[in-house]
Amino acid sequence: MTQPLNLKEMSAKLDELWSPRIVGELDNAYYAKIAKVKGELAWHSHDDEDELFIVIEGHLKIEMKDKTVELSPGDLYIVPKGVLHNPIAEEACSVLIFEKKETRHTGNVENEKTRSIEKQLRPI
Amino acid sequence: MTQPLNLKEMSAKLDELWSPRIVGELDNAYYAKIAKVKGELAWHSHDDEDELFIVIEGHLKIEMKDKTVELSPGDLYIVPKGVLHNPIAEEACSVLIFEKKETRHTGNVENEKTRSIEKQLRPI
Repeated sequence: MTQPLNLKEMSAKLDELWSPRIVGELDNAYYAKIAKVKGELAWHSHDDEDELFIVIEGHLKIEMKDKTVELSPGDLYIVPKGVLHNPIAEEACSVLIFEKKETRHTGNVENEKTRSIEKQLRPI
Repeated sequence: MTQPLNLKEMSAKLDELWSPRIVGELDNAYYAKIAKVKGELAWHSHDDEDELFIVIEGHLKIEMKDKTVELSPGDLYIVPKGVLHNPIAEEACSVLIFEKKETRHTGNVENEKTRSIEKQLRPI
């Protein structure tokens, strides 16, 4: 990374929903990703990885079995490992995700929204 | 974390400059921290850890030996391990930092701004 990335400007360039793109790598172990989302992803969990969300623009709900949290811009939330969750956005929403390199964004579920790391690594 | 945290609201409560406070933990390995800063920290580096910055409010300059980057709200930048850097804010600025639990915010330097992890863990 030679210059800072503006998260809002970068998210505005995303042309596909639910298709995370990698914008940074930390310690060869974690990825910072951005995604534009609308609708719902899928109920899934990550057995061994916590997942950090920060909303860039719009509103994101994260349904879990025992509660639903609602995130507005600048809100941070961490879904703990093993917790079943389903991200939902009624309107288009941009989000920063921070997770281990091996984390699959759809966790233990494979569906039509699942994207390979190679696809997530494409330049924006 | 039972509810999302608003980064701007949380930073507004910080009462001490250059004193990071931990707002989240990931995989028992990383901390998300927020800090209010003004002036300059110190030239330092982190031998084994990259350090991710996202500006919440205000403007942050990160001086490095070969260049200076300037971050505005919503800008993300990663200082690679081993790179000497010095964060500077001409006016008060709030920043999210993401780094390994063992990372010292003043890196290889100990000065009057160095804070212990115990202090960083105090509730805001």
